[in-house]
Amino acid sequence: MLLVMKFGGTSVANAERINNVAGRIKRKYDSGNKVVVVLSAQGDTTDDLIDKAHEINKNPSKREMDMLLATGEQQSVALMCMALEAKKVPCVSLNADQCRIYATSDYSNARIKDINTQRLKNELDAGKVVIVTGFQGINRKGDVVTLGRGGSDTSAVALAAKLKADLCEIYTDVDGVYTGDPRIIKYARKLDEISYDEMLEFASLGAQVLHNRSVELAKKYNVNLVVRSSLSNAEGTIVKEGAKVESMLISGVAVDKNVSRISIIGVDDKPGTAYKLFSELAKKNVSVDIILQSIGRDGKKDISFTIARSDVNDAMSAIESVKSRINYESVDHKENVAKVSIVGAGMATNAGVAALFFEATYSAGVNVNMISTSEIKISILVDEKDADYAANAIHDKFMLQASAIRH
Amino acid sequence: MLLVMKFGGTSVANAERINNVAGRIKRKYDSGNKVVVVLSAQGDTTDDLIDKAHEINKNPSKREMDMLLATGEQQSVALMCMALEAKKVPCVSLNADQCRIYATSDYSNARIKDINTQRLKNELDAGKVVIVTGFQGINRKGDVVTLGRGGSDTSAVALAAKLKADLCEIYTDVDGVYTGDPRIIKYARKLDEISYDEMLEFASLGAQVLHNRSVELAKKYNVNLVVRSSLSNAEGTIVKEGAKVESMLISGVAVDKNVSRISIIGVDDKPGTAYKLFSELAKKNVSVDIILQSIGRDGKKDISFTIARSDVNDAMSAIESVKSRINYESVDHKENVAKVSIVGAGMATNAGVAALFFEATYSAGVNVNMISTSEIKISILVDEKDADYAANAIHDKFMLQASAIRH
Repeated sequence: MLLVMKFGGTSVANAERINNVAGRIKRKYDSGNKVVVVLSAQGDTTDDLIDKAHEINKNPSKREMDMLLATGEQQSVALMCMALEAKKVPCVSLNADQCRIYATSDYSNARIKDINTQRLKNELDAGKVVIVTGFQGINRKGDVVTLGRGGSDTSAVALAAKLKADLCEIYTDVDGVYTGDPRIIKYARKLDEISYDEMLEFASLGAQVLHNRSVELAKKYNVNLVVRSSLSNAEGTIVKEGAKVESMLISGVAVDKNVSRISIIGVDDKPGTAYKLFSELAKKNVSVDIILQSIGRDGKKDISFTIARSDVNDAMSAIESVKSRINYESVDHKENVAKVSIVGAGMATNAGVAALFFEATYSAGVNVNMISTSEIKISILVDEKDADYAANAIHDKFMLQASAIRH
Repeated sequence: MLLVMKFGGTSVANAERINNVAGRIKRKYDSGNKVVVVLSAQGDTTDDLIDKAHEINKNPSKREMDMLLATGEQQSVALMCMALEAKKVPCVSLNADQCRIYATSDYSNARIKDINTQRLKNELDAGKVVIVTGFQGINRKGDVVTLGRGGSDTSAVALAAKLKADLCEIYTDVDGVYTGDPRIIKYARKLDEISYDEMLEFASLGAQVLHNRSVELAKKYNVNLVVRSSLSNAEGTIVKEGAKVESMLISGVAVDKNVSRISIIGVDDKPGTAYKLFSELAKKNVSVDIILQSIGRDGKKDISFTIARSDVNDAMSAIESVKSRINYESVDHKENVAKVSIVGAGMATNAGVAALFFEATYSAGVNVNMISTSEIKISILVDEKDADYAANAIHDKFMLQASAIRH
């Protein structure tokens, strides 16, 4: 079968790890697979290069930064080929230019537009393992551009999609997707399967195993993804359409502590208020997550919303600048909050889920500030100090009682 | 004017030196010049990368080694651009692919075939300083190839030739070409000018200021070269056609200690002997320098020649394998010899040069083993222990008495 394997920076951080990964690639190749490998830069290489740049210029152009950073992956792929050569595996390394990965011109945050796989296919047909630089593409000018956070995952999925690969394996330092962060959720379990949509919700809820863009791309082109550990032979978690999360109603619980709540009190209760407020926030590039609006009374209403903590200053200045147009009474800002969410494709069709969720928070004695729901997700805002406790209570309730409800 | 400036690895070894070089580039740019800059990899980067590779594979393919090493120059050019950006100099970095430097496919030792300067010219016309990776090109496949030793000098000269630049400045850690190695020749003087041919003889005699290939290219395309220091504002040495070496008969004295002499005693004195011997040596890739053949007597003759010390084993096995065909009596091998040479375009037309040369060695009491002459060079083989002394004696004789002879 045709296989795309992606390894992150920690998996290739030194000679020993490179040799380990080369051994893993060799086993796949020796079993008769066609293998494309996507690599990130070694260990701290990218950070070291950024430091080196900042020593010379605190604010270098993104174009030159991309030119600099792209060398990290090029070193990884060349070194990996040398390790494979030592194991007598025919192979060739390709950078983004040689692999013809065309991307938009947005230096430091480009998107892959297309891949001309002619050379890649020729090399595969010649019996070679092809090692490709992740995280980068070339734009219309022929300049190197990088793909932004999680870019190597996206490179791997894009190559798998374009080559119609049978499987895209994302090797990482955890052995799959869990029902919750094992550092927080005591009884977290590894999932065998999860659907694209659930994975997307998970990622956006702060469980960064895969970057959203790569999952969106996998969903769009129906790429079979596996998230697994580069340190063990454990099976990992399959991400695919219509994945069955066993007998569980939810696929997991996520906690996001990078949350602030802002409440605007006593806003004029008339049409256009929300538009004026949120378009001003958008102008400042502030992403709003949960929004809650009270029912108007005496011609006034309250609007509350959550944002990332790093956006608080920008949000406050946006609100200040819109004061005269929405005519509010006061602004309240609460820092110590956290978002606890459950994700599960099954919940949309099961009325018992919400009830079970709130039973869990009630039994745990946790006060719920805000609630937001989607087809496959319920999120609540709680005090930060209650978040881990609430998450464990919810997790235990669902994992233990799930089958009881479904049947 | 259109200017190509080339800086070696020591000139860009760290942030401080990069900033110094950026300052120098800015001054040229601010004076109204169009500037193309060619850079080597920083300091020990290339050696460090080679070590990294050898940790993984003692004998990696040259293709992957080139892929790895090419990142060194790419980092240099990006960092240099960042330094120029900080000084508000418009600039752009180009790697060999972006600069369209086409080369032969000989990984690790490619030769530049052509350069498509379209993008380069566009960037210059847009008022930018263009910073180009030295030492590398792309081959027909689009693979990165490196140009071998002294490759960045060759990149700079090739760009200057193709762009018809007014001047190509090679910045290095010495402030020009000297009449002799200042570590050996006590009264060595810096030359203001030297001709291409003299520079070529110098380089081949072990005075590695410029690599031969770059000088050959400069001569072929009549590129005005200047060798100068990146650490001072001293004028440097101009390398050009018909350079006038002031009132001196010779442009300098060179000493090469990487020499072994082999003598084959009692060879059959008949046609074809030399051919059989030297074609066998060529097969083993042994370069022969000075050759001396005795006049035949009693149907036998002796053949002596000099080679690099690292080639002695290969030479001996070649001689052994040809024994039955040339029927020699014995082989003598002398390790501790050195070559002392004088170079000067003026010597061909001046009968006094050879006499002065041998007067100097005679007065110094140095025994001459072998003699070899060309139009602009005289070389002698002496015992290694005598080499520095002989070189100084010759240098003093010519520098002091040169004008006396000419006039």
